[in-house]
Amino acid sequence: MPGTCPHRDLMDRFFRPRSVAIIGLSRTTGEGSFNILENLLNYGYPGQVYPVNPHAAEILGVPCYPCVDELPVTPDLAIITLPRHLVPGVVGDCARKGIKAVILVTQGFAETDAEGIRLQEEFLAALASSGTRLLGPNTLGTVNAFDGFSSSFTPMRRADPLPTGMICQTGFFLAVNLAPSVGLGLGVDVGNAVDLGVVEFLDYLGGDDRVEVIALHLEGLGDGRRFCEVASEVTRHKPVLALKTGRSAAGAAAAGSHTGSLAGEDAVYDAAFRQAGVLRLSGVDELDDVVKAFLHLPPLRGNRLAIVTATGGGGIMAVDACAGHGIEVARLSGDTLAALKAIGPPWFEPGNPMDVWPAAIGKPYPLVFAEIFTRILNDPNVDAVLCIGGAVVSTGTDLADFIEAAAALQRDKPVVWWVQGQDAPRIAARVEKSRKVAVYPSPDRAVRALALLHRYYSAIRGRRPEPPATLEGIDALKARELLRREAGYLGPAVFDLLAAYGIAVAPWAATASPAEAGRLAGVIGYPVAVKGYGAGLVHKTERGAVILGLTTRREVERAAADLLGRTPAEGLLVQKYFAGGHEVILGGKQDPQFGPVVLYGAGGVHTEILADVSLGLAPLSVAEGRRLLEETRFSRILAGTRGQSPGDQGALLDTLLRLSRLIADHPPIAEIDLNPVLVFSQGCVTVDARVRRGEEE
Amino acid sequence: MPGTCPHRDLMDRFFRPRSVAIIGLSRTTGEGSFNILENLLNYGYPGQVYPVNPHAAEILGVPCYPCVDELPVTPDLAIITLPRHLVPGVVGDCARKGIKAVILVTQGFAETDAEGIRLQEEFLAALASSGTRLLGPNTLGTVNAFDGFSSSFTPMRRADPLPTGMICQTGFFLAVNLAPSVGLGLGVDVGNAVDLGVVEFLDYLGGDDRVEVIALHLEGLGDGRRFCEVASEVTRHKPVLALKTGRSAAGAAAAGSHTGSLAGEDAVYDAAFRQAGVLRLSGVDELDDVVKAFLHLPPLRGNRLAIVTATGGGGIMAVDACAGHGIEVARLSGDTLAALKAIGPPWFEPGNPMDVWPAAIGKPYPLVFAEIFTRILNDPNVDAVLCIGGAVVSTGTDLADFIEAAAALQRDKPVVWWVQGQDAPRIAARVEKSRKVAVYPSPDRAVRALALLHRYYSAIRGRRPEPPATLEGIDALKARELLRREAGYLGPAVFDLLAAYGIAVAPWAATASPAEAGRLAGVIGYPVAVKGYGAGLVHKTERGAVILGLTTRREVERAAADLLGRTPAEGLLVQKYFAGGHEVILGGKQDPQFGPVVLYGAGGVHTEILADVSLGLAPLSVAEGRRLLEETRFSRILAGTRGQSPGDQGALLDTLLRLSRLIADHPPIAEIDLNPVLVFSQGCVTVDARVRRGEEE
Repeated sequence: MPGTCPHRDLMDRFFRPRSVAIIGLSRTTGEGSFNILENLLNYGYPGQVYPVNPHAAEILGVPCYPCVDELPVTPDLAIITLPRHLVPGVVGDCARKGIKAVILVTQGFAETDAEGIRLQEEFLAALASSGTRLLGPNTLGTVNAFDGFSSSFTPMRRADPLPTGMICQTGFFLAVNLAPSVGLGLGVDVGNAVDLGVVEFLDYLGGDDRVEVIALHLEGLGDGRRFCEVASEVTRHKPVLALKTGRSAAGAAAAGSHTGSLAGEDAVYDAAFRQAGVLRLSGVDELDDVVKAFLHLPPLRGNRLAIVTATGGGGIMAVDACAGHGIEVARLSGDTLAALKAIGPPWFEPGNPMDVWPAAIGKPYPLVFAEIFTRILNDPNVDAVLCIGGAVVSTGTDLADFIEAAAALQRDKPVVWWVQGQDAPRIAARVEKSRKVAVYPSPDRAVRALALLHRYYSAIRGRRPEPPATLEGIDALKARELLRREAGYLGPAVFDLLAAYGIAVAPWAATASPAEAGRLAGVIGYPVAVKGYGAGLVHKTERGAVILGLTTRREVERAAADLLGRTPAEGLLVQKYFAGGHEVILGGKQDPQFGPVVLYGAGGVHTEILADVSLGLAPLSVAEGRRLLEETRFSRILAGTRGQSPGDQGALLDTLLRLSRLIADHPPIAEIDLNPVLVFSQGCVTVDARVRRGEEE
Repeated sequence: MPGTCPHRDLMDRFFRPRSVAIIGLSRTTGEGSFNILENLLNYGYPGQVYPVNPHAAEILGVPCYPCVDELPVTPDLAIITLPRHLVPGVVGDCARKGIKAVILVTQGFAETDAEGIRLQEEFLAALASSGTRLLGPNTLGTVNAFDGFSSSFTPMRRADPLPTGMICQTGFFLAVNLAPSVGLGLGVDVGNAVDLGVVEFLDYLGGDDRVEVIALHLEGLGDGRRFCEVASEVTRHKPVLALKTGRSAAGAAAAGSHTGSLAGEDAVYDAAFRQAGVLRLSGVDELDDVVKAFLHLPPLRGNRLAIVTATGGGGIMAVDACAGHGIEVARLSGDTLAALKAIGPPWFEPGNPMDVWPAAIGKPYPLVFAEIFTRILNDPNVDAVLCIGGAVVSTGTDLADFIEAAAALQRDKPVVWWVQGQDAPRIAARVEKSRKVAVYPSPDRAVRALALLHRYYSAIRGRRPEPPATLEGIDALKARELLRREAGYLGPAVFDLLAAYGIAVAPWAATASPAEAGRLAGVIGYPVAVKGYGAGLVHKTERGAVILGLTTRREVERAAADLLGRTPAEGLLVQKYFAGGHEVILGGKQDPQFGPVVLYGAGGVHTEILADVSLGLAPLSVAEGRRLLEETRFSRILAGTRGQSPGDQGALLDTLLRLSRLIADHPPIAEIDLNPVLVFSQGCVTVDARVRRGEEE
């Protein structure tokens, strides 16, 4: 059922089955035995269990059945843990029995060898048109701390459920918890995901009101577009955090275009996550930090942070962290400053960061701290407070008491603590139980978590879907015709293709004769450039097949003859020559996961080395197009710097939007580079371009 | 005694005094009282204590003395904790009594108000020429876990000393430990460091054989050059790790040159640390990680890492981490692969990362793990091993047992563990006691620590000091003369200045007459550029005072007249015009902390926006000069890319070395920009340059 996620009733069977068959259950029990039934009972499962094992009458006191056929009922769920060669038969048995949900624990299928591939095809065939859906193979399955169910063969520690959901692509993170300082509500290991996968479970967790924040561990996605559709919907009402691994494998494939090499797999994931409102995290530490922030803290809508610290040195580190994560150091109001000034010695100067220590000289530290903290928390110029304390400094009271007292004051502003010292983990574990504050082991991690909180609540939650930009003057039929005519790299027709989408190109004409080139130059108007084209000239400049700035007919004829003699040119392009302007590159490609993507970046020799580019899924909305232009460093040059005139960003945006539509409308375009596009104070023009058609249409 | 660190005998008094006076000791004791004597006794100090308090006969059973004069002996050390107005008198008393070491705990001096400044001047005067040295003010003082001494007013937990040393600029980090998962040996809070500071204590810790690794918390340095001298010496035999805070305050000052704005305070610290062999860390987490790595692990000389993992997904994350930190994923030897292949099921394919899980199907996991781990550890292609395990997966044995067993096998190769899960802190605390393995909470942190270990052992430990480059054809006298003649920005004489140091400049001549400009152009040879110069034309290009590529006398005369009429030019520069070549910028400035520094980077419009620059302390050694050229991204363009010819890196290096000598030889040069320098396939030439002389010589 591509495009549609299964109904909730069916998905519920994976997380809260009323009855479950465990097929191939081992008789070995006890520590180190990985016995699913034993784990399930220990976990507190309240439903009916039907072990299937022809060699046992009962296991752990639960009666066994010899085969699926002989089960006395049709259970909601079957868990299969048999050797791989038995799997296809048993999957067929389950389908015939009418079991609608199957978790296939066994590994050793298509990821391993030819026999595994064959067996996988066989069990998929057994599923076909049965209405039975499968999770796995190679999976621990699901965990549900709310209702007390787990299919895991490694023991799960059941704790009070927290409103978290987790989808991972390895059982390890289900077993140990991807965000270990936070408890789990619902979790699933999608394993090899040959049927149900990340998309279906994301849709399911998105629709479960008990889940407030969703963490993903992703190694790859089959259908990136569907993921984006579902994620865009989910992120509008709850945060989705992704740990995408395998960065370094990305972009390894050699590519024929700039866009191909710059828009590597990992960069496309970045762009897709951003467009879908998914927050991408750098590692397990950050995931833990951010899940905790969403779980414990109220929404952060402003980004003005106050820092209340037991150490001036720590305050400096917190300011560094703010600068690093785009969080503003709040300017305290005059009223607050005046009230604080009255607390310390005569030479005491309050501010932000607020070093509490000098104010507390000769006074009871806890009382001074509480007074300062309260005043700053209530300052209307402050959106959130970071407190800094030491875990082994005795101050006459336990730091955890401080934090709990502060948490009690917290209403609608996030309060985070950086606690330094050996006791920090103990303090964090104790005070975070209240779900009112979040404790971090460094100021950088505290501020980084706040920055993501702010990004979510200010820019993602509740946002409206943006439609693709509306564009006029597009001749899609003509473009399709042009693409049908030629295979591989397009010749001069690439300029017609761009023109069909309303993209301004340098006036041009094609010929194979030097004399005709001279005549055409006069028609186009000097100065002109002469370029060779043909299959052997994909990298024209490197082959010396581009001669610029010709100003007379004689020059043109000579250059044309030279070019034809010296290079493998199949023909000549005579083109109006433009000097000046800002050089940029625009490009597009079909990404295997996410389909059509567009790219924008600085042009010229720096293109690949600086990799100062931005990416988006095509077709772009106007807002997304603007974001692409804004997020490169080159945008500052384009806006006009010392001695440089600004470029026409409106015209550039229009070109980018049109290109995004072109690549989205025409899947046969495998890769396209507009390089360079020259951006002038008024308008922009594409001076060279290259299109590669895909292998098959 | 500038330039010389105090004798060890004197410094010893701060860390292991045989006797100590505590002047201004409070009678209040008990929790929350911050009583230095109480802490000192609890810490197990074995020496003599003499409290000084005119209002008490004894405190905690220790007899008190009314004033310093009446002390029965001259103690090794005095700790002063009096209100600030009493400090100057008592410092004088100490000096007269012959006490050679004073720790001044009191705060509220020059960092606060005019009265504080006056009092500080007064106590410094009382110290002058007494031979008494002072630590503070505003300090917790010192901690010595080896010998049982601490001057801290916050209680210190004494544990078994580890061979670590710490110098910090805030008492907080002394109190809570800057690297909390590691115990402390010797520590000092330098406070406001008005006398002894970071340099003196670094020298002291560097010379103490009980200290194997030194951690620094720095907010700033008075004399950066002396720090570099001392640190260069210390890092040759033990690692020095620096957490430098206040990054975001750096570079805030507006600067008149590219070099001024690009060589911000923080970037200069980076360059200085690198030249001195100091490892700079990003935050408290990383400091903790790296101190632990140096403390627990043997030297890492190669960088080939094997990954032995309980999870394929974790292995992917470890590979990402390797790519991020420049660590190689080892290729296991054929022998190892063959031996591993025999362990798993038929479809099992061993490799690196090595996922142990499939190999252990149906076998006792601990035994399989141990066999695989041992074979990989002994592979000659492997320099270090990262193991990945989950802290809550029951495998029939505690993960800590695994790690201890693995640690026992570890001989000369570092073994690190990423342990994921809620029990990770407990496991880490237990197994790290053996000081044989290091446990990390993410693969990124484990690999990051290994990368620094490798950097230290491969490039810093035992390295020879590099002398500045030897250069010929330098006329320092002429340069001094030129710098003496003009104030503020130099006019055309800047080219003479460069030429005096053997730096190739574009041939030039100066005049104020358009007709003469025309004549000079003929002498220099066409094409030429005409530029205006003068006080109002510091940014020539922006003011339209540069006209390039003139090819006839008439053009030159017209351009010259136009320039004089249109701009505030005081004179004209006629200069040989060069086209092509790679544009780079070279620069130099006097840094307030570190003195003369040089800068290299990509030139052109990208200079400030891309900030693709490298810095070094001048004068450079040849190796340092090479490093500067290599570490920018632009170096790849200079080495020759698609369609670009490579630049003459030898000529560029020579120019950089000469510039570094120029700025080092002549402190009156406050800032110098050579921008652009054009680098051709053969040679390079400075086309424009600017020098700003400092306010005072």
